Amino acid sequence: MPSSKEPISVKLSHYEALKFSAEVGERSVQLNSNEEMGEAFTPMELFLVALAGCTAMDVQFIVERQRQKMDRFEVTISGTRRDQDPRYFESIEIRYSLAGTGLRRDAVERAIRLSQEKYCSVRAMVKDTVKLNVTYAITDGTEPEELYTYVPSPG
Amino acid sequence: MPSSKEPISVKLSHYEALKFSAEVGERSVQLNSNEEMGEAFTPMELFLVALAGCTAMDVQFIVERQRQKMDRFEVTISGTRRDQDPRYFESIEIRYSLAGTGLRRDAVERAIRLSQEKYCSVRAMVKDTVKLNVTYAITDGTEPEELYTYVPSPG
Repeated sequence: MPSSKEPISVKLSHYEALKFSAEVGERSVQLNSNEEMGEAFTPMELFLVALAGCTAMDVQFIVERQRQKMDRFEVTISGTRRDQDPRYFESIEIRYSLAGTGLRRDAVERAIRLSQEKYCSVRAMVKDTVKLNVTYAITDGTEPEELYTYVPSPG
Repeated sequence: MPSSKEPISVKLSHYEALKFSAEVGERSVQLNSNEEMGEAFTPMELFLVALAGCTAMDVQFIVERQRQKMDRFEVTISGTRRDQDPRYFESIEIRYSLAGTGLRRDAVERAIRLSQEKYCSVRAMVKDTVKLNVTYAITDGTEPEELYTYVPSPG
């Protein structure tokens, strides 16, 4: 992934209740704590978007470099929070769903492994605190998809 | 913070290059890897928004419960990435800026401490991997703001 060494900066401004507006350069996204979300997101939702986005881009990038062609690529992510404070995600499920003609399972799994274990920055930041359960599904678009469980490398 | 036990789920769909659309319920946010961002965000930007949002809401909530009144509350966050893969944030600077009449420094610091050490879920997930440097600034709106360094509790 190309990326610069410049720090990344964000500014949040409170405007009412637990609502904040986050400015990233000239872009903005709204935050709220819960309910009546409108166009806003909770911090924990955005964390999941960040984690899924990070690994999705890695896998997209690597699968293209493997000269495999995807017609469709989706990543779903679901996190369950702890009961006690701090109520972070005790476990997160990630599923990669790929559709394309002639996709090779071993190459897809290798792309996922490279992201999970080498490249995904968000994953790396939480690797000692969050249990990730990873699966992937492959279909050529005519047959039903085959579902596989990703097994992390030992150690 | 009120929050339910329901899992939080997000679905990302690839549409071109390294661009994905993330759906969270009926809301959506766009992701891209770099440059020509339009309305999109990078995963690492959204991670910072999630972290800042998490602690900003805690502090807002606690300061209100302390019956302190803020006229303005902003949180700025800036992260510097590692040179090597995975290029996660090796350090993150967070500054809380509060303006209000009669804000008490000790109470503000206590609110920040409760968030940093007890409540902030995003913080808790990265506490062993990311060095956080935290400062806070307080002003009554007439005098220049006073800047303080937050010192984490030992252990």
